[in-house]
Amino acid sequence: MREPHSFSRLINPRAIAVVGASHDLSRIGGQPLRLLTEFGYRGQVYPVNPKHKEIKGLRCYPNVASVPRPCDVALIALSGAHVTPVVEQCGAAGIPFAVVISSGFSEAGAEGKALQENLLAAVRTAGVRLVGPNCLGVLNVKENIRNGFGGVMRHTFVPGPYAMVTQSGGFGFSVLTTAAYYGVGVNYAISTGNEADVSTLDLTEYFIERDDVQGVFVFMEGVKDGRRLIGLGKRALELGKPIFVWKVGNSDVGRQAAVSHSSRMIAGYELFQAAFRHGGFIEVRETAELLDALKIFRIHRGRMPRSNRTGIVSVSGGAGVLLADRCVEHGLELPPLATTTKDELRTFMAPFASIANPIDATGAGNNDSYASYNRLVSTVLNDPNIDQLIVRIPSSSGTVLAQGLIDVARGSDKPVMVDWPISPGENPVLMQLLEDNGLPCMPSPGRGARALAALNDFARRKRAYDAQLAQPAPRAIAPQALELPKAAATLSERCSKQLLQAYGIPVVAEVLLSGDVIAALEMPPLPFPLAAKIESPQIAHKTEAGAVRLDIRSLDELKTAARDITAAARKFDPNARIEGISVQEMARGLEVIVGAINDPIFGPVVLFGLGGIHTELLKDITHGFAPFDASYAKQMIDGIKGSALLHGFRGSPPLDVEALADTLSRLSLLLADHAERIAEIDINPLFVRTSGQGAVAADALIVLK
Amino acid sequence: MREPHSFSRLINPRAIAVVGASHDLSRIGGQPLRLLTEFGYRGQVYPVNPKHKEIKGLRCYPNVASVPRPCDVALIALSGAHVTPVVEQCGAAGIPFAVVISSGFSEAGAEGKALQENLLAAVRTAGVRLVGPNCLGVLNVKENIRNGFGGVMRHTFVPGPYAMVTQSGGFGFSVLTTAAYYGVGVNYAISTGNEADVSTLDLTEYFIERDDVQGVFVFMEGVKDGRRLIGLGKRALELGKPIFVWKVGNSDVGRQAAVSHSSRMIAGYELFQAAFRHGGFIEVRETAELLDALKIFRIHRGRMPRSNRTGIVSVSGGAGVLLADRCVEHGLELPPLATTTKDELRTFMAPFASIANPIDATGAGNNDSYASYNRLVSTVLNDPNIDQLIVRIPSSSGTVLAQGLIDVARGSDKPVMVDWPISPGENPVLMQLLEDNGLPCMPSPGRGARALAALNDFARRKRAYDAQLAQPAPRAIAPQALELPKAAATLSERCSKQLLQAYGIPVVAEVLLSGDVIAALEMPPLPFPLAAKIESPQIAHKTEAGAVRLDIRSLDELKTAARDITAAARKFDPNARIEGISVQEMARGLEVIVGAINDPIFGPVVLFGLGGIHTELLKDITHGFAPFDASYAKQMIDGIKGSALLHGFRGSPPLDVEALADTLSRLSLLLADHAERIAEIDINPLFVRTSGQGAVAADALIVLK
Repeated sequence: MREPHSFSRLINPRAIAVVGASHDLSRIGGQPLRLLTEFGYRGQVYPVNPKHKEIKGLRCYPNVASVPRPCDVALIALSGAHVTPVVEQCGAAGIPFAVVISSGFSEAGAEGKALQENLLAAVRTAGVRLVGPNCLGVLNVKENIRNGFGGVMRHTFVPGPYAMVTQSGGFGFSVLTTAAYYGVGVNYAISTGNEADVSTLDLTEYFIERDDVQGVFVFMEGVKDGRRLIGLGKRALELGKPIFVWKVGNSDVGRQAAVSHSSRMIAGYELFQAAFRHGGFIEVRETAELLDALKIFRIHRGRMPRSNRTGIVSVSGGAGVLLADRCVEHGLELPPLATTTKDELRTFMAPFASIANPIDATGAGNNDSYASYNRLVSTVLNDPNIDQLIVRIPSSSGTVLAQGLIDVARGSDKPVMVDWPISPGENPVLMQLLEDNGLPCMPSPGRGARALAALNDFARRKRAYDAQLAQPAPRAIAPQALELPKAAATLSERCSKQLLQAYGIPVVAEVLLSGDVIAALEMPPLPFPLAAKIESPQIAHKTEAGAVRLDIRSLDELKTAARDITAAARKFDPNARIEGISVQEMARGLEVIVGAINDPIFGPVVLFGLGGIHTELLKDITHGFAPFDASYAKQMIDGIKGSALLHGFRGSPPLDVEALADTLSRLSLLLADHAERIAEIDINPLFVRTSGQGAVAADALIVLK
Repeated sequence: MREPHSFSRLINPRAIAVVGASHDLSRIGGQPLRLLTEFGYRGQVYPVNPKHKEIKGLRCYPNVASVPRPCDVALIALSGAHVTPVVEQCGAAGIPFAVVISSGFSEAGAEGKALQENLLAAVRTAGVRLVGPNCLGVLNVKENIRNGFGGVMRHTFVPGPYAMVTQSGGFGFSVLTTAAYYGVGVNYAISTGNEADVSTLDLTEYFIERDDVQGVFVFMEGVKDGRRLIGLGKRALELGKPIFVWKVGNSDVGRQAAVSHSSRMIAGYELFQAAFRHGGFIEVRETAELLDALKIFRIHRGRMPRSNRTGIVSVSGGAGVLLADRCVEHGLELPPLATTTKDELRTFMAPFASIANPIDATGAGNNDSYASYNRLVSTVLNDPNIDQLIVRIPSSSGTVLAQGLIDVARGSDKPVMVDWPISPGENPVLMQLLEDNGLPCMPSPGRGARALAALNDFARRKRAYDAQLAQPAPRAIAPQALELPKAAATLSERCSKQLLQAYGIPVVAEVLLSGDVIAALEMPPLPFPLAAKIESPQIAHKTEAGAVRLDIRSLDELKTAARDITAAARKFDPNARIEGISVQEMARGLEVIVGAINDPIFGPVVLFGLGGIHTELLKDITHGFAPFDASYAKQMIDGIKGSALLHGFRGSPPLDVEALADTLSRLSLLLADHAERIAEIDINPLFVRTSGQGAVAADALIVLK
């Protein structure tokens, strides 16, 4: 774990110089002065503008050099061309941070890009860390510091144990105002703008380590370093602090817009999703989803579910059914209640109540001041089959029900969530009472189930991470020296397979024979059925050249095939050097595709999927970041929708998932050990045989860079 | 179109008898008296209870017979066993409607079921229409009539041009209270309970015809008559009034709970979804989604989009990107702007603004009192490539921006939606101003895009429906008389194919030969490669019997195959009558599966999907309600995820979708014409050849009932 750069003086500065300060408080250079003087900031504010002696009752300084020390941040509101010299002056004046809210940099064409490059050079020379340009600024809700501009900065915010890092200032801060309305608090928020210097990753890395931050919300279009993102995901699991991430720019149209908006490269969304799934991230796609997740994690942080086994208690059959639908959809399990629980419930519940899971207490649950409803909740909460509970309460619920529920929930260490169909403005006092006492309230079954599922996802991944830390798996094979051509090249099938074999990946039996030898054969070189393929360094895509024959069943067919293939190859490329015919056993089993790429953002990545339209059309592919072990590979395998096919689908015997996982892991080691040379690997197809019979590569292609 | 039963006296009764009226106003027999006297009901209320002379200042009647006429509704709050006689008395007393809020009927075991059957018999005899039992009652918000019980009935409701029919009273009414909080109005709401008599479909059919109802919201677990549901969907399109439907009980766990909650049979969710997709339904799955849809349909009812081509205008790059992502995800199209539009925009927009679609006006859009932003909106609204517009406005927006936007939008007949990241409580006056002037406000990009997509889906289906009405397609083939065995039977492949041929569905060439004839063959009976299959009325599943050989390439192989198949068939069933070996051409093309079932709820249904795991594991199947024409079949074909495979995937030639659609349509006619006899049809596989080459059934199985 690298030591994160400290940004504590950025978010909590003793003094702020506002460079380009304006008398007109509605302008970009004037707004920060209002925000810094009217909302409770207790540090010093130094307007900088050579044209004025004083602005808004504050002494105005002619330049950065003349500002009293210590000054921790320069907020720069000058037009683009004037920013760079000021950053240089900040370095000389010992101001460690600059926040540049001006625009007209990399987001504005070639000229702006050049301007930003100069700015970055100045930043490096001056030893200053710079936020922006083209950002809205830095918000410290806890200490009432609103160091930026924009109408959204004047809103009401609520402090709380989260930090936000946003690549879109406008969108991010608008989410914060909604969060405040829902009572969800955030201590710190930074708009990163063009990220010339300080990046989303820098800030997330910093915030996640802070004691007053229990989680970080990141609104992102992309990052430059996928491996650092993955590292952050691990750290999040280690600390038990989730990173809530909202990734945009994922559709083709959206991506183009994102590229025009920021200048960084956008990696495929699927790789981001893989990174999120493998680490301590909670991916959100909607404001409400984010706020619900922030709420449930804040309240249940110290009470994580031990498993996803969920009980549902309701006074409305319809709500119970809907909760059940949504829980199942989100991967929560609804086990049957223990017999002892059912027996106890029968002693006091209405005869027409439904004692299953979901449990429908019916309208009778509303009677007797909820005494029996509370007893029901308590009984189910004690059920050994149940590790968490959702309790539906009527919209008209009052203090009696709430207090009873609080008392019952206090007697258990299992998380309880309340499905209460009201909006936050309707009964804020009662909602506060419930939530202050450990009972997060969710306004609809769908939202509640999704939030609870997020909590369970994180808990499950943390358990797995901790278990893996305790018992790390050894490498499947030590790094192997490989003899590779010095230059970029597409290796032949034969060479490619030899490299796979060097890492212990099984390939089909094959012999390389000349056309003449085949013509003279009296016995098959390997048992039928066979495949025959041209072997030529110039012909990488043999099928396209018509130089492959499959399912050869006799010596005659083999001889014909050899002649045809040679002729086709000569026709395809008259200058190709033909080294012979590769005669191979026809492997059997389930065809899968295993690939590997070296992604510019995420580095070496292994891909897995079923062949044909499953990968190309239906995009049913999973991704793993190399290197990885076999248990990680198994997660990858089970990540595809078609994975049931491997586990004995519809009465067919289960396939050798162990061997497949081993192959994936070995391929990840091959790629990771030689990432500086290997650009791509394709194993297409790999045949997976029935359990215990292994997996074998029938064709392979390695591209060197 | 059947004439819907009129429920106008049910929802707007001149007088209501409360049978089982109680002095204790907190009890189930007392609550209705408060609800009917304290919330503005202007009709008469007649408590019925032989024990009292007066309750709450109202004269109390000893029985239903003594209640003054006219009385339109009897609200019955008696315990289960006492309900039936009262319903009989209602008939005698000329009371046309009974609303039974008591429980303990079909939801409560065998005894309750019997009670409900008696009740239904009484209903039929008495000529009374009955709502419930086990329901919450009937709500008429427009006329302040709260004819039911439950805490939720005391809430604030807002009138508006919608009606709600809910199978879960508790859940449905809780949604209504949230709707009221969001300012979404509903005139009528009925909880249907066990639906012993009056069903969800009866009421929806009635409400959709009312002039003061622009759409109906239905919360359902299931219906008994799928065809009537489909008919309602057609009527909804005809009237241009959507049916918003929230279907629950779709997961296995949820379905079990639903079955225990209501007694009706639950059809597969996928058939409901097909019904929804083919008619004027908007399926919703979340309270917010419903309310957003109700809002956008109410405001844009007279201004439906002409196509799904959408423009996005934003002052926040991040919000624009997110809107773009979500629009694309929901099937909205973001076309490039016309050149003339771009040219005009360049004359007044900031140089660093992004003039694409989404259009990012940047923070500059907030300047000049929004004059340029309004000009931007107006310019894009006039773009011929754009049929509707999403305008993002900052959370801090005020009257100036709103009024400008209203003026601009008024100048166009294209729908405009506002993405405004605030909650309803934050600025209700401005939101009301915008919405009263035709600009629905959505609180987040995701919710806005989904609501707009719902509007577009409905508009598209209505266009298609109207076009089809104007030019109905003729039947592909007239009804054919078929010679079918009298009894239930599984027909042989040969017989099954003959029936397909009778409806003009092509099947592969085949000859039926005896084993002896094959043994003596000197020439192949059909060109190689061939398939050979046992022909025996006793062996329906030939592959399982080992009695099929494929890809036979020589006479020797054919003879061996015939011997092996015969032996395998004899071993499988020594008593099977072997009628010969069917020798068939091996068809080529894309393998698809076409099936047909006779569903107990939805009747004759045709299924289509790719073979193998696509149908069985990935559930990539579409459903069509027979009979249908080829254009409907094409929608079915394009409904599967893998449909790109048929249209020339990755450079392969496009396949004969016309022939496939024709086959589906003919199969639907075969099934519909003979639905009283045919239980199931399987064509597995059907081979679809390249465009112009047709499609051909290689195997078929028909099950008669």
